[in-house]
Amino acid sequence: MIDLHLIGIGTGNPDHLTRAAEAAMRAADLILLPRKRADTADLYNLRRALCDAVLTPNTRVVAFDLPVRDAAAGYLTGVRAWHAAIADAWATQIATHLPGGGRLALLVWGDPSLYDSTLRIAARLRAGGLELRVTVVPGITSLQALTAAHAIPLNDLGAPVLITTGRQLATRGWPTDATTVAVMLDGEGAFAKLDPTDTQIWWSAYLGMPQQALLAGPLAETGPAILARRSELRADHGWIMDCYLLRRTPA
Amino acid sequence: MIDLHLIGIGTGNPDHLTRAAEAAMRAADLILLPRKRADTADLYNLRRALCDAVLTPNTRVVAFDLPVRDAAAGYLTGVRAWHAAIADAWATQIATHLPGGGRLALLVWGDPSLYDSTLRIAARLRAGGLELRVTVVPGITSLQALTAAHAIPLNDLGAPVLITTGRQLATRGWPTDATTVAVMLDGEGAFAKLDPTDTQIWWSAYLGMPQQALLAGPLAETGPAILARRSELRADHGWIMDCYLLRRTPA
Ligand SMILES: C[S@@+](CC[C@H](N)C(=O)[O-])C[C@H]1O[C@@H](n2cnc3c(N)ncnc32)[C@H](O)[C@@H]1O
Ligand SMILES: C[S@@+](CC[C@H](N)C(=O)[O-])C[C@H]1O[C@@H](n2cnc3c(N)ncnc32)[C@H](O)[C@@H]1O
Repeated sequence: MIDLHLIGIGTGNPDHLTRAAEAAMRAADLILLPRKRADTADLYNLRRALCDAVLTPNTRVVAFDLPVRDAAAGYLTGVRAWHAAIADAWATQIATHLPGGGRLALLVWGDPSLYDSTLRIAARLRAGGLELRVTVVPGITSLQALTAAHAIPLNDLGAPVLITTGRQLATRGWPTDATTVAVMLDGEGAFAKLDPTDTQIWWSAYLGMPQQALLAGPLAETGPAILARRSELRADHGWIMDCYLLRRTPA
Repeated sequence: MIDLHLIGIGTGNPDHLTRAAEAAMRAADLILLPRKRADTADLYNLRRALCDAVLTPNTRVVAFDLPVRDAAAGYLTGVRAWHAAIADAWATQIATHLPGGGRLALLVWGDPSLYDSTLRIAARLRAGGLELRVTVVPGITSLQALTAAHAIPLNDLGAPVLITTGRQLATRGWPTDATTVAVMLDGEGAFAKLDPTDTQIWWSAYLGMPQQALLAGPLAETGPAILARRSELRADHGWIMDCYLLRRTPA
């Protein structure tokens, strides 16, 4: 029996860690750290530093190479095949390092509920016959780090908020159900294709990290500034993670 | 100059506290604890217990009576008048306990960005001429505690999520932009008025507290069970706080 803990760790700042997250890290028999492409070595290093800050030498920390997603496949097909490959990689690590079962922890960026695949991968392993109990430890999401950094509310008074991806925003345009939209996973700057009338944007990259960048203002002027800043930052650091909030004055 | 820290504390479980929240509590010169109606004394006591667990005797903790919202006024009008009255109450406490300025902390349920009024009240005080710097410390929201307790993702793979209130869901019905809807501030059970076809619900009350209750399943059967459970629990405890996630199979 594998007692799997998916631990939300916030967005790179050790101060985001909750007491529950720290305790769950310390109680693990094994922590698996995914290592991705070279350009996200920073993210691996942040998780590694978190382990060094929190753990005693009793906890085994094992890095493993995360399979690469096939960008040529269709989006959902590609993602599903990737999840299957990650599930295989976990299974191999578990068989090697916890053959008799035990307590396994994974450190999840932000919160495990939000645009994260670990719960789905765990479900695949269970469907494949592994005896697995899953516990989720919530963590501060990038959207919370965003609203905190700008000191703004997520919602207008009593009003709805749509959380979505850059891909969805680009495909579907501004939603009919909300005057606030929070956008993640946007590699392309989907905000730049919207009608900017009466729309404000609050943007941030590298939230919680030393290189944190913030911009906010009317979308008409701030949108182009963000696009310019993003490509500078991406060139400087080799990678970028950013998210933003858009708010339209209700009609 | 008042250096105001709005500290997200999660939903009552001290294990939700982040390192940043603890540090901000300890660094405060004054922590103001709102005391509401008698039926929510539990919430006051939870905040008080958190202070006892975290603080040294150096920090002054002062309770003050929160003005009551006029339920007879229209919703937005009533809420705005209420915020103005709370701003006055804060101003009185600040004038009494921090006449020379200093570091003031408020312990905010969940995260200060999510359906919470403290940022708006701070803006009122600033508009009224108080020199105020606002820092937000994010906290685990009730929605994160909900998805963690059920060990479910918030979103379907790459799909949008609408966060809304019971009032909005009851008025507007199922949104067109999302197949997942997260609902807070629902005193009436707005889910019971929806067409339950192909819809799942994950519900919880008193998240993070000893009396935490969970129910999940198809809305058609689980909806009525939740309504029954809610009124039992509300009768038992004198108050209830609950939230839920609805997910519809995409057409
Ligand atoms: C795969 S999702 C994971 C989200 C994560 N589970 C959370 O709770 O924030 C990755 C996306 O989250 C956002 N993100 C994560 N970390 C971030 C950071 N430190 N700064 C800005 N955005 C971040 C970006 O939109 C990025 O594309
Ligand atoms: C005024 S809002 C505050 C939300 C808070 N800022 C947050 O981040 O969760 C209050 C609503 O949050 C939800 N809520 C807060 N605490 C809860 C708890 N412990 N269990 C279930 N729902 C809770 C309920 O929907 C409640 O009506």
